[in-house]
Amino acid sequence: MTETPLHDPIALAKALMACPSVTPVDAGAQDLLETWLERLGFEVHRVTFGDVPNLYATRGQGQRLCFAGHTDVVPPGQVDAWTSPPFEPSVEDGMLRGRGASDMKGAIAAFLAAIARAEGTPPLSLLITGDEEGPGLDGTKKMLGWMAEQGYSFDHCLVGEPTSREVLGDMMKVGRRGSMNAIITIEGRQGHVAYPHRAENPMPAAAHIAEALASLDLDGGYEHFQPSNLEVTGWGSAKTAENVIPADAWIRLNVRFNPNWTGETLVAHLETVIGEAAGGAKWSWHPRVSGEAFLNEDPALAGLVTKAVRKVTGRAPELSTSGGTSDARFIAKVSPCVEFGLSGQTMHQVDEQVPAVDVERLTDIYSEIIALYKDGL
Amino acid sequence: MTETPLHDPIALAKALMACPSVTPVDAGAQDLLETWLERLGFEVHRVTFGDVPNLYATRGQGQRLCFAGHTDVVPPGQVDAWTSPPFEPSVEDGMLRGRGASDMKGAIAAFLAAIARAEGTPPLSLLITGDEEGPGLDGTKKMLGWMAEQGYSFDHCLVGEPTSREVLGDMMKVGRRGSMNAIITIEGRQGHVAYPHRAENPMPAAAHIAEALASLDLDGGYEHFQPSNLEVTGWGSAKTAENVIPADAWIRLNVRFNPNWTGETLVAHLETVIGEAAGGAKWSWHPRVSGEAFLNEDPALAGLVTKAVRKVTGRAPELSTSGGTSDARFIAKVSPCVEFGLSGQTMHQVDEQVPAVDVERLTDIYSEIIALYKDGL
Ligand SMILES: [Zn+2]
Ligand SMILES: [Zn+2]
Repeated sequence: MTETPLHDPIALAKALMACPSVTPVDAGAQDLLETWLERLGFEVHRVTFGDVPNLYATRGQGQRLCFAGHTDVVPPGQVDAWTSPPFEPSVEDGMLRGRGASDMKGAIAAFLAAIARAEGTPPLSLLITGDEEGPGLDGTKKMLGWMAEQGYSFDHCLVGEPTSREVLGDMMKVGRRGSMNAIITIEGRQGHVAYPHRAENPMPAAAHIAEALASLDLDGGYEHFQPSNLEVTGWGSAKTAENVIPADAWIRLNVRFNPNWTGETLVAHLETVIGEAAGGAKWSWHPRVSGEAFLNEDPALAGLVTKAVRKVTGRAPELSTSGGTSDARFIAKVSPCVEFGLSGQTMHQVDEQVPAVDVERLTDIYSEIIALYKDGL
Repeated sequence: MTETPLHDPIALAKALMACPSVTPVDAGAQDLLETWLERLGFEVHRVTFGDVPNLYATRGQGQRLCFAGHTDVVPPGQVDAWTSPPFEPSVEDGMLRGRGASDMKGAIAAFLAAIARAEGTPPLSLLITGDEEGPGLDGTKKMLGWMAEQGYSFDHCLVGEPTSREVLGDMMKVGRRGSMNAIITIEGRQGHVAYPHRAENPMPAAAHIAEALASLDLDGGYEHFQPSNLEVTGWGSAKTAENVIPADAWIRLNVRFNPNWTGETLVAHLETVIGEAAGGAKWSWHPRVSGEAFLNEDPALAGLVTKAVRKVTGRAPELSTSGGTSDARFIAKVSPCVEFGLSGQTMHQVDEQVPAVDVERLTDIYSEIIALYKDGL
């Protein structure tokens, strides 16, 4: 058995992608990382929470740059629909294809290769979880707690999530919107439709609420952020026979919100909106804020990454906060944090793929970031 | 075995109520009727459609009054919750209790006893089905077709459904509202809530439609009729994960409508309302009119029943069209038709019961109706 050549990001990516590490299964992915990082002189800690494998690796002393990411991937979906098997990575027509190519084994491979190629680096660490695509309870969040206990820390963080849109380097993320889910229940009293006065139909109040929520204008945006957005994502009512008024109805919603709101102010505002729309109807709800909005306020880190991207690709990435949540929401609480990685166009889809040359280019960008960081931030 | 005393409505009612004739099961109820009616000199026809037993009995020649009703009952519901077993009829504290006491074995018994007590009657017939509480496809509607084929007819019809509210005689029905059910489906495209522009959320249009329907004012009423009324009776959406915009949503509704509308004009009107509320959203629906509104325009029949009720109870019944549908909607197409029977306060409920004295009084009222009809209408 020949050793994986650590300077070759495509070889590293393919080795990681061959592990079917669907959350929370590791399938050997972090074993590979441990081997490679030890070959690169890192001190490697494997930490399991629940059934989730996590890894923290560190090298050198002083102001430290951390690379954060995840080895878990989403399920392959309809396996038959893939051009080639999802966990048999291949490069065909210049495309690296397989589950995790974009999100985000390709980026982990690029960062490893950048370290392997460097002649001397600043103090570095890697924070890798196996629970980014899942509930996220036993991953990065708990690892940050563990690190605090153990006395491990870093000064800046680069998250390798796919952030590019059309072409590599067109976008980086400097924050993320917050996210809130809720289910609203409107209560009435069941009865026959022919005698509505003997029942209490919850549907009119529920319709008012749904209408009020669906047409709600939360704000006009925030620096680097889209306007906050509420989507009604479903509704239902008590199962009944055809001619029966149901006893209750429910409405489900999700809000992606910018720093105009905290989870708390948003919950209070929606409570007012729902209460007014409900009129006299009896209602209750269960709001759940799964992440606050955050913005990396440190211009130095974003400036360094921009400089590196421009040097390799010739373009300055847009500083964005769009898209879904990521573990950056946890990391941003302990250090400046930006996200930069491959194109996310095919992430979570059948035939997830990225141009192989982008993995090479990303390696160059990460090399440049490491070099610039060594010069001092 | 002693013969059931045909002049005793309580004895007849108890015998019928001891048959657990939950739609479409007959459990011997129509066998009893056949025996009794033959003893009263009726020519009895048993006609089965599908698995539904029906009966048509006729006596005499000339202008004929038909009594219409049903031997089937709704299921007993939670049997444990009954004070006494639902199919073991009893009279306790003056109340005749058991499934069918009110709806409507008590009324059938009263009509039979009225015939037995009469010294000479006008030409009469009885149209009895075993499918009034069920789908109603193989009952009265088909029997009327069968009668037309066989050359049987009647000139006026009295339906024995429970029509009284608080006390016996306070209300009779001279028509019924029409009924329409519909399910509206709004189509969109599934996608992740963080990227709503890549999906097409059907919920905002669905909320508009639900709101428009729930607040719709159809009309201000019609002579003898309440305003037409629309109830949204449920809604749902495609099952998805929490952070996913569903591909479609649906809304269910029922309309009870007065003669300001036909099923056709109502469907056309709602189609406009829904279309406008939908905006550009793709929607479809399945409206189903299960009964047109009808009003008995014959003042003579209603006058005769009013006179009989007033003579026995001292009160003039309100002429109403409220409540659910009944087989009167089919009969009204072939003859003048009114409905008068016991109190419906406990119909379809646990511990269905009526005062035993009301069954006696109803027998008196039916006797009076028969006598008045004999004198000529
Ligand atoms: Zn990811
Ligand atoms: Zn009935």
